[in-house]
Amino acid sequence: MRAHLVPILLFLAPAPGSAEEADWYPAKYGAEDTLGAINELSPEGVVAAAKLVKTGRTFALGVETGRDTPAFGARSFELFAVANGDGSGETLGANRATFNDDWMLTWLGIGTQIDGLAHFGIDHVYYNGNRVQDFFAPTGVTKFATHELPPIVTRGVVLDVAGHRGVARLEAGQVISADELAAIAKRQGTPIGRGDVVVLHTGWQALAGSDPDAFLAGEPGLDVDGAAWLAARGVVAVGADTWGLDVLPNPDPEQVFPVHQELLTRHGIYILENLRTDELVAGGTAPFLFVLGQPRFVGAVQMVVNPVAIR
Amino acid sequence: MRAHLVPILLFLAPAPGSAEEADWYPAKYGAEDTLGAINELSPEGVVAAAKLVKTGRTFALGVETGRDTPAFGARSFELFAVANGDGSGETLGANRATFNDDWMLTWLGIGTQIDGLAHFGIDHVYYNGNRVQDFFAPTGVTKFATHELPPIVTRGVVLDVAGHRGVARLEAGQVISADELAAIAKRQGTPIGRGDVVVLHTGWQALAGSDPDAFLAGEPGLDVDGAAWLAARGVVAVGADTWGLDVLPNPDPEQVFPVHQELLTRHGIYILENLRTDELVAGGTAPFLFVLGQPRFVGAVQMVVNPVAIR
Amino acid sequence: MRAHLVPILLFLAPAPGSAEEADWYPAKYGAEDTLGAINELSPEGVVAAAKLVKTGRTFALGVETGRDTPAFGARSFELFAVANGDGSGETLGANRATFNDDWMLTWLGIGTQIDGLAHFGIDHVYYNGNRVQDFFAPTGVTKFATHELPPIVTRGVVLDVAGHRGVARLEAGQVISADELAAIAKRQGTPIGRGDVVVLHTGWQALAGSDPDAFLAGEPGLDVDGAAWLAARGVVAVGADTWGLDVLPNPDPEQVFPVHQELLTRHGIYILENLRTDELVAGGTAPFLFVLGQPRFVGAVQMVVNPVAIR
Amino acid sequence: MRAHLVPILLFLAPAPGSAEEADWYPAKYGAEDTLGAINELSPEGVVAAAKLVKTGRTFALGVETGRDTPAFGARSFELFAVANGDGSGETLGANRATFNDDWMLTWLGIGTQIDGLAHFGIDHVYYNGNRVQDFFAPTGVTKFATHELPPIVTRGVVLDVAGHRGVARLEAGQVISADELAAIAKRQGTPIGRGDVVVLHTGWQALAGSDPDAFLAGEPGLDVDGAAWLAARGVVAVGADTWGLDVLPNPDPEQVFPVHQELLTRHGIYILENLRTDELVAGGTAPFLFVLGQPRFVGAVQMVVNPVAIR
Repeated sequence: MRAHLVPILLFLAPAPGSAEEADWYPAKYGAEDTLGAINELSPEGVVAAAKLVKTGRTFALGVETGRDTPAFGARSFELFAVANGDGSGETLGANRATFNDDWMLTWLGIGTQIDGLAHFGIDHVYYNGNRVQDFFAPTGVTKFATHELPPIVTRGVVLDVAGHRGVARLEAGQVISADELAAIAKRQGTPIGRGDVVVLHTGWQALAGSDPDAFLAGEPGLDVDGAAWLAARGVVAVGADTWGLDVLPNPDPEQVFPVHQELLTRHGIYILENLRTDELVAGGTAPFLFVLGQPRFVGAVQMVVNPVAIR
Repeated sequence: MRAHLVPILLFLAPAPGSAEEADWYPAKYGAEDTLGAINELSPEGVVAAAKLVKTGRTFALGVETGRDTPAFGARSFELFAVANGDGSGETLGANRATFNDDWMLTWLGIGTQIDGLAHFGIDHVYYNGNRVQDFFAPTGVTKFATHELPPIVTRGVVLDVAGHRGVARLEAGQVISADELAAIAKRQGTPIGRGDVVVLHTGWQALAGSDPDAFLAGEPGLDVDGAAWLAARGVVAVGADTWGLDVLPNPDPEQVFPVHQELLTRHGIYILENLRTDELVAGGTAPFLFVLGQPRFVGAVQMVVNPVAIR
Repeated sequence: MRAHLVPILLFLAPAPGSAEEADWYPAKYGAEDTLGAINELSPEGVVAAAKLVKTGRTFALGVETGRDTPAFGARSFELFAVANGDGSGETLGANRATFNDDWMLTWLGIGTQIDGLAHFGIDHVYYNGNRVQDFFAPTGVTKFATHELPPIVTRGVVLDVAGHRGVARLEAGQVISADELAAIAKRQGTPIGRGDVVVLHTGWQALAGSDPDAFLAGEPGLDVDGAAWLAARGVVAVGADTWGLDVLPNPDPEQVFPVHQELLTRHGIYILENLRTDELVAGGTAPFLFVLGQPRFVGAVQMVVNPVAIR
Repeated sequence: MRAHLVPILLFLAPAPGSAEEADWYPAKYGAEDTLGAINELSPEGVVAAAKLVKTGRTFALGVETGRDTPAFGARSFELFAVANGDGSGETLGANRATFNDDWMLTWLGIGTQIDGLAHFGIDHVYYNGNRVQDFFAPTGVTKFATHELPPIVTRGVVLDVAGHRGVARLEAGQVISADELAAIAKRQGTPIGRGDVVVLHTGWQALAGSDPDAFLAGEPGLDVDGAAWLAARGVVAVGADTWGLDVLPNPDPEQVFPVHQELLTRHGIYILENLRTDELVAGGTAPFLFVLGQPRFVGAVQMVVNPVAIR
C-alpha cells in the first residue's frame, strides 16, 4: 500500500509566511542539529555516572501503561493476547510446541513517556526553528523521531520536592520555582550539572490510581523560570512523577504548557512524564546512574519508556 | 466497556486432564515462582557489572521497528503522527502552543523483542507447569506478563560466533553448539557466569534490510544442547542478532523451535531476538553492563525493547 | 510485510483425527457449498419482496456502534477523526480545500452484526463439515468470509414476541419456542416462508443503553426447537434485538449457544444480532422488503451492518 | 478512560475571525440543517423506486476492502481472525461450542465509501457554514457523522460514460462535463431527477487490481460544471467507479478536488467512491432501486459501504 501514495504534497499551497524572526534559534548545538540536549552526553559522563553505583539496587522509573492508566485527551490503549493457531489445540512439531503472541493499539503518550522534539512547538515552529511542515508526515515524523535518539546514559538526580516541603503530595497548581530547585539541590548535596537528567518527586503520581480525574485535572509542576534555571545548568532531560511536568493551572491563566516550550522547543531538552519516583526517594536522594533505551518504533513523536535508575 | 464483560469463563467445559507428569517442573526457583531466571539477578551482580564500564561508550542493542521490518507470521505494524487540533491552525494560549501526538498498532514481536515466559510452551503447558488456561486472557496474560519484570541489569557477554568462524555471516541452518559456545567463551576470555545475559553475534541481522525474505526463511542459531549448556551456566537471558534464536531449519526436521522450550519453558530463561550486535562486536568482545528497562504495557506476552550495553 | 510470511503451516503436526461422522453434513446445498441458506434467495423472491413496499417508509435496523455500546467478551472499539495536514492551517490549492479523515479499530461483533458461517462450530467443525483448519488464517478466514456474501434482498418478517405476550420486554432466560413462533406468525397473518429473513422483537435492546450490565448478563431468545422450526421453513437468516439470539441462560445449563450451532453450523442460516426493531414494530407487523449490503472487508468472520427494512 | 478527558478546549485561543461572508450558506434546507441532500428523499420516491424492480436481479456496488486495496494517502487496513480461547482446543459446554471472532484496524476511506458532510470543506468551513471547530473532535465528529444518516433508498441512475464514448475505460484527466452528462442521460432515456442517486461508469475501477499505482495517480471524472449540473437536478448523491469522483489532474492545475467542494460543501450532496459498476452496466442502463444502509459507527466522517442496486 505504501507504494501507492498519492503525491498530495504537490498540491500544497505556498507555505504561509515563515515564522517571525525568533531569538531561540538557531540552537546552540548548530543550525542543523536535531538531537538537542542529547549533545550534552559524553563518554566521560557515562564513566562518572557508572561510579555512582554503590549498592546495586535498581529502580524501574516506568509506571504501568494499561487500560486504566489515566491519559491526556483522547489517548487510548488496547492490548490483546493471541494464542497461536486456529483454536483446535494443534501443536507444532514432535516437540509439541505452542505459543502466544500479542498486539496492542496505543497512543504513545500514556504512562511513562519521553517527549521528543517533534512533540511541542511555538506557533507551529519547533526546536531549532523547524516548521511543522518540515518534518510532519501522517505516517510518522521524518525528523526528531524518538527512534533516532541514542540511549540516554548519564548521572540522574532526583529532587525530592515533597520531602523538602514536608508533605506527602504537592497540590495542583503549586509552582516549583527556580529558587526552590536550587534550595533542594543544595540541601540534598546534589548540585545539578551539565548532562544530568533531573527527576522531580512531587507525590502526584499516587493520585493516578486513587483519583484519576483529580490526577488529570491539574498538577503541581515547574514554571518557566524553574525550567529556565534547569536549562541553564545544561541538563539533558527533566522529568517528574506528574503527567505533564508543567504546573497546571498555570499561574498565568493565558499560558498553556509554557514549560514544554521552554525545554523542548527553545532548548532541545527532553521531557519525561509519569515517572515512578516513590521507591527512588524512599531510598534517599543520592545521585544515580540513569539508563534509558527507548524502543525504536520508526517515526514516533513520543515513546512509552521505562528508564532504569541504578545506585 | 470493561465493566460489561460476559463471564464466559463460567461456560468452560471441565479442563482437560492435567498435563502429564513432567520432569521440568516445579522450577528450581520454587513451585510458585513466575520470574524464572530473573532470580539470578542480584545487587552484587549489578555492582560488579557497573565496574565493567571503562570507556563510557554506549550501544543501543535495539533495531528499528517499522513498516518495513521483516516480521514472523502475520505480525504487522502501523504508526501515525497526529497534529493536535482540527487542522485550522489553531494554537493554544497566549504562548501559541502547538503539539503533535502519535499512536501505533503493533504486534509485540517485531524488531528487537524480549520473549516473556507466557510466550512458549510444551503442549499448552508453560514455565513451572502452568497450563495456558491458568494465565491466558484475551485482554492480556494474567501471569508472566512482561510489565511485571524488574529491570534486567547485569553483566553482558557477547559471543562473536561469526568472528570465531572467520565469516561475516553464518548461514541458515548452521548450528551453534555447546562446544562452540565454550570454545568462543574461552578464546575471548569471557567465561559465562551465573546471572549473565549472553548475546550471540552471527551477522544474520544484516539480511533483514537487504533480503528480508531470506532473513525470515531460516537462520543460524542454537540447538538444544547449546541452549542447555547456557542454562547450566545460570544465565538470565540469551539473545542473538537473529529473529528466533533457534537454528532454522532444525537439524531434526521434526522439531519446531525446541530451543524456545529449553530456555523459556523448562528453565525460565528469557530470550532476546533481533539484537543489534554489529557495533557491539566491532568494539570488541569485552563484557559490558547490560541494562534493559522494558516498557510496561499491562498484560504483554512479549515486548519490543532496546537494551543498552555500556562499556 | 505480507511477502515475508514464514511458512509456519509447514510445521503443523498431522491434523487430529477427522471429526467423527456427523449427521449434519454434507449440507443440502451440496458438499462444496459455502453460502448456506443464501441459496434460498432468488430473483422471484426479490420481485415479490419489492411488491411489499406500499408506504415508502424505511427503517434502519442497525443500532449505533460506539465506545459505549455493550459488547460481548473482550470486544472493543475506538474511532478517531483526523484533520488532514500538519495542524498549521494549510489548505490545498487555489480553492483552499481542507478535509478530515478517520480510522477505527473495531472488533466486528459490536452492535448490529451478521454472523458468517466461520463464526460458530461444533468441536472445531463448521458448516458443511469444514474443520477450522480448512479455513482459519490469522489474517482473515479463507472461506465463509462475509465479504463474499451477495446482498441479502428478500422478504422480511418481524415477529413481535413482546407484543404477543403483552409486555414491553421479555426477561432474560425466557424461551421463545417453536410453538410460540408459530402462534405469533399465525396471529400476525405473516406465515414464514422459504427465503425469508425473520426478525424477533423482544424489547431487550432497550436495556443496552439503560443497563448494559444487565443487557449482557442474559437475554431472552430462541431455544434449539425454535431454531429448528425456523430452519424447517427454509429461512435465510434469523435476527433479534438481542445480542446473541440464543436464550441465556439456556434451560439446559450444560448447553452454550446451541442455537448458533443449529442455525449457522448445521443449516447454514445466518444470524443477525442487536437489530433495532422498536420503530419497526411500532409501525406494525406487515412483511417488508429486507435489504442488506454488508461492507466487504476481506476475510471477515462477522460484520457490523445496518440492514434496511422498507414497507 | 473516557471519563478522564482533560478539558483542553478550555485552553483554546479565541477562534480566528469567522469565515468571510460566503454565497453558499445558509443551505437551502435551512440554517440548522445537517443532512443536506438527504432532505430530497421521500416516501413517494421510495415507492416509485421500488416499482423499478422488474427482474429481481441484485448488484453489490461495493468492492472489496482489503490489504491490497489501493488507498489514498496514508490510509491503511489490517484485519485479523481470532479463534476463541487459549489455543488448547477447549470447547464450551456439553455441545462443544467453538467460535471465531475478528477485529480490524481500518481507515474509513478505503474501497467503496460514502463521504459525509464533515469530510470536505473550503478553508476550514464546511456544509452550511459550519467551521471545523464546530464539529471536530479527535474521538469522532460531533456533527455530520455518517452514523446519523438515515438509509438512502431512492431511484438510482447509472450513466455509462465509457459506453457513451465507445471505450472500455476513460483516461486519467478526462473531464465528464455537464453537456456529456445531459447527452448520456438523454441517450439512455434516463433523465436525472430530484432525489436520485447518480452513478458514473468510467471503467477506471478495473485498474485498481491491475495497476494500482496508475489507478491512484489520476482518474477521469467530473469537473465543477458537471457537478453543478447534477446539483441543479436535486440529486442526493453522486458516485463513480473512481476513487475520488473529481477529475485528476484537474484542467485547472491550481484546483484541488473542487468537485468535492461543489457537492459536499456547497450543496450537501453525498459522494460515493470506488463503486463497482461493471456488472451493473453489463446489465444495461435501466434505473434501479438504490438501497444503502451504512454501518453506524459513532462519529465517523466517512464510511466503507456496499450499496445495493436492484432491478
